[in-house]
Amino acid sequence: MKAIKVGILGLGTVGGGTALVLQRNANEISRRVGRPVHVTMASVRSLDSQRLCDCSQLTLTQDPFEIVNAPDIDIVVELIGGDTVAKDLVLKAIENKKHVVTANKALIALHGNEIFAAAEAKNVSVSYESAVAGGISIIKAIREGLAGNKIELLAGIINGTGNFILTEMRDKGRTFDDVLVEAQELGYAEADPTFDVEGIDAAHKLTILAAIAFGTPLQFDKVYTEGISKLSLIDVGYAEELGYRIKHLGIAKASDDGLELRVHPTLIPEKRLIANVDGVMNAVLVKGDAVGNTMHYGAGAGAEPTASAVVADILDIVRTIDAPTSCRVPHLGFQPAEIKDRPVKTVEQFESAYYLRFDVSDIAGVMSKLSSQFADQNISIEGIAQKEPVAGQDFVSVIFITQRTNEGQLDRAIASIEAMDEVRADAIKIRVEHFN
Amino acid sequence: MKAIKVGILGLGTVGGGTALVLQRNANEISRRVGRPVHVTMASVRSLDSQRLCDCSQLTLTQDPFEIVNAPDIDIVVELIGGDTVAKDLVLKAIENKKHVVTANKALIALHGNEIFAAAEAKNVSVSYESAVAGGISIIKAIREGLAGNKIELLAGIINGTGNFILTEMRDKGRTFDDVLVEAQELGYAEADPTFDVEGIDAAHKLTILAAIAFGTPLQFDKVYTEGISKLSLIDVGYAEELGYRIKHLGIAKASDDGLELRVHPTLIPEKRLIANVDGVMNAVLVKGDAVGNTMHYGAGAGAEPTASAVVADILDIVRTIDAPTSCRVPHLGFQPAEIKDRPVKTVEQFESAYYLRFDVSDIAGVMSKLSSQFADQNISIEGIAQKEPVAGQDFVSVIFITQRTNEGQLDRAIASIEAMDEVRADAIKIRVEHFN
Repeated sequence: MKAIKVGILGLGTVGGGTALVLQRNANEISRRVGRPVHVTMASVRSLDSQRLCDCSQLTLTQDPFEIVNAPDIDIVVELIGGDTVAKDLVLKAIENKKHVVTANKALIALHGNEIFAAAEAKNVSVSYESAVAGGISIIKAIREGLAGNKIELLAGIINGTGNFILTEMRDKGRTFDDVLVEAQELGYAEADPTFDVEGIDAAHKLTILAAIAFGTPLQFDKVYTEGISKLSLIDVGYAEELGYRIKHLGIAKASDDGLELRVHPTLIPEKRLIANVDGVMNAVLVKGDAVGNTMHYGAGAGAEPTASAVVADILDIVRTIDAPTSCRVPHLGFQPAEIKDRPVKTVEQFESAYYLRFDVSDIAGVMSKLSSQFADQNISIEGIAQKEPVAGQDFVSVIFITQRTNEGQLDRAIASIEAMDEVRADAIKIRVEHFN
Repeated sequence: MKAIKVGILGLGTVGGGTALVLQRNANEISRRVGRPVHVTMASVRSLDSQRLCDCSQLTLTQDPFEIVNAPDIDIVVELIGGDTVAKDLVLKAIENKKHVVTANKALIALHGNEIFAAAEAKNVSVSYESAVAGGISIIKAIREGLAGNKIELLAGIINGTGNFILTEMRDKGRTFDDVLVEAQELGYAEADPTFDVEGIDAAHKLTILAAIAFGTPLQFDKVYTEGISKLSLIDVGYAEELGYRIKHLGIAKASDDGLELRVHPTLIPEKRLIANVDGVMNAVLVKGDAVGNTMHYGAGAGAEPTASAVVADILDIVRTIDAPTSCRVPHLGFQPAEIKDRPVKTVEQFESAYYLRFDVSDIAGVMSKLSSQFADQNISIEGIAQKEPVAGQDFVSVIFITQRTNEGQLDRAIASIEAMDEVRADAIKIRVEHFN
């Protein structure tokens, strides 16, 4: 069969890694798909940079539009990032009836509905396995491997930078700011770390996972997002003393009255496998009605792990490139006409257990008042821990772990407690999930 | 599009679960694949047993050949088990140009080469996701999700019964025999537990995983297999004291000079994620040259987890049922003409680290003699632990953890040591893998 020609937009870390993997494993790959797959063009910012791959057989250009318009390119791989030029390039490639592979989570989370509709109109595929959790084939697992299930829950450590910071805080007692500087030096975090540490990157990925899990449109603006930048070492330590670890999770839950889409720090019992995923590694827990809990673990970033997913997408496209569109897995896992909106809950409607820390000046006098506020809102308390007063401080900390409750009710109890003279505003509230 | 008709051979736990999941999630499933999928026939041993599923719309028969010969059945699901009648049924279904889904690991491990060749001649698919690790879509992950990689290593907890027994031994200090009886009562182990506890079931599954990882034929007879029935509580405890857990693993490794295919108890550092997979759960670690380490976790058995994988296979077939064969993933992940034999190593050629226990009568006198035997064979020792003598015993135990070495050399050192007067035969040898 005729060779497939691939053009890569952006020959940086992931682009260079993708070309390298396609070159190094060329023999293995053609043994799998029955035809050669060659990278023949790539766009670059500068023509004389060092590359990860061999460029001797590649046409390099500084104009990525040259690639999306090249008549002999079958598959365009978009690795430029961002959602402006990348979007124009992807839409142009689709218009030219080229299949597209992209690692761009922002692009898919924000413009996926439009991009997929354009691709469906032209009978081409836009694949995005590498956009979520790097080398873990989680898109394939949900869209295909678990296709017989109603997905009830997914929860993922889907930002390696954040997980690295939380792991260092717990293991070495270092502060958030301290670890962030190291993460930047190691290249795990950007100079502007906002996307990683404020949860926006994780929210992009959760948007994608939720759409394919539930068959809903992509709806980034409905994801509740809380980062890790305000997380205190004190609470990381208290959580550990209570048998929990704090992970920054993207959580999507379906129930009859709607979906919860949320990204936030979460206490997880230390015995759970996902609580033991450390450093820059990613993992996604998926619960289906038939399969129960599954977990998918691997590197979430880096040149070759991400390239692994990009190449898998390329090979899926190669396999069905001459076949009718109906043989391909639909973009969001469900037939386009079957993508259906479902109500998304607001924060006040969330159901969770909670870790609460109050700093109080007069522990003896205040405990019964606190307890009565919880009782007034029908909130059951799972456990209470009172910390020893720290020398030089005129307050002590009390920790409550609640049973599962409604967040609106909880917030009313917290507001009443914060209004007390003996209690310092503001309470610390971190959600707790048990995943059993 | 016209509905797809499925016939199930064997309506027991997995068969009933499969029909139930297809019924319960019928709406979700047709939203995914764009057409209804109905179970219309099923074969049963007795016509009046209780079933997991609704049988009101099903034609039940006691003759499974009626289903494989029924003109309107599109997909035959073989859930009878064993490799005699099941093989005849599968080959007959193929001859009748029906696609087949099977959960039968013994059938695929022992007769897969013949069955796949027959299917390829008739342009039909035989899918077997549910044959390995139940609900974990590990076949899909290796054949498709990691298709860009050269697979270097896979290691799996792929027998839930064995993992349940080892977990109970470690957590509760119970003996193998004691836990086995409970496992039988709970329905985790068969009345004749040989397949599970002697590693044969795991070897069937490893045979399948190795073939799709390396693009080699299925070759069950080349798997080195050691069970857990001789594992002593003493060594489970010593391993734990040294920071390891013992898991029964199926391991497949590729190096330039050949493959290692082995099933045996293995010490793993307790920090590794796979060391923390407990109870009846399964997990498979896969290391690819691009992606690095990935892990895939979930329920390895049970009605609905297994049904989840059976249904996923059905939906993959439905999607490409009207398409050319070239669109389908080849049976072993590589094009049939590209399946190539590779040399498989014998035990003496294995490379591993080892846990060794010697019971010696005279610890002071014997240590230097032991050490010199290891030195003679160029074996480096990572650590030594000498246990306190137990009251009433006239010997003490010495534990050695070796560095990675050749097993043939190690066995020569062990034989020399066992020949010493101060050493009781036989030494305990358990392989150690670090997976880093």
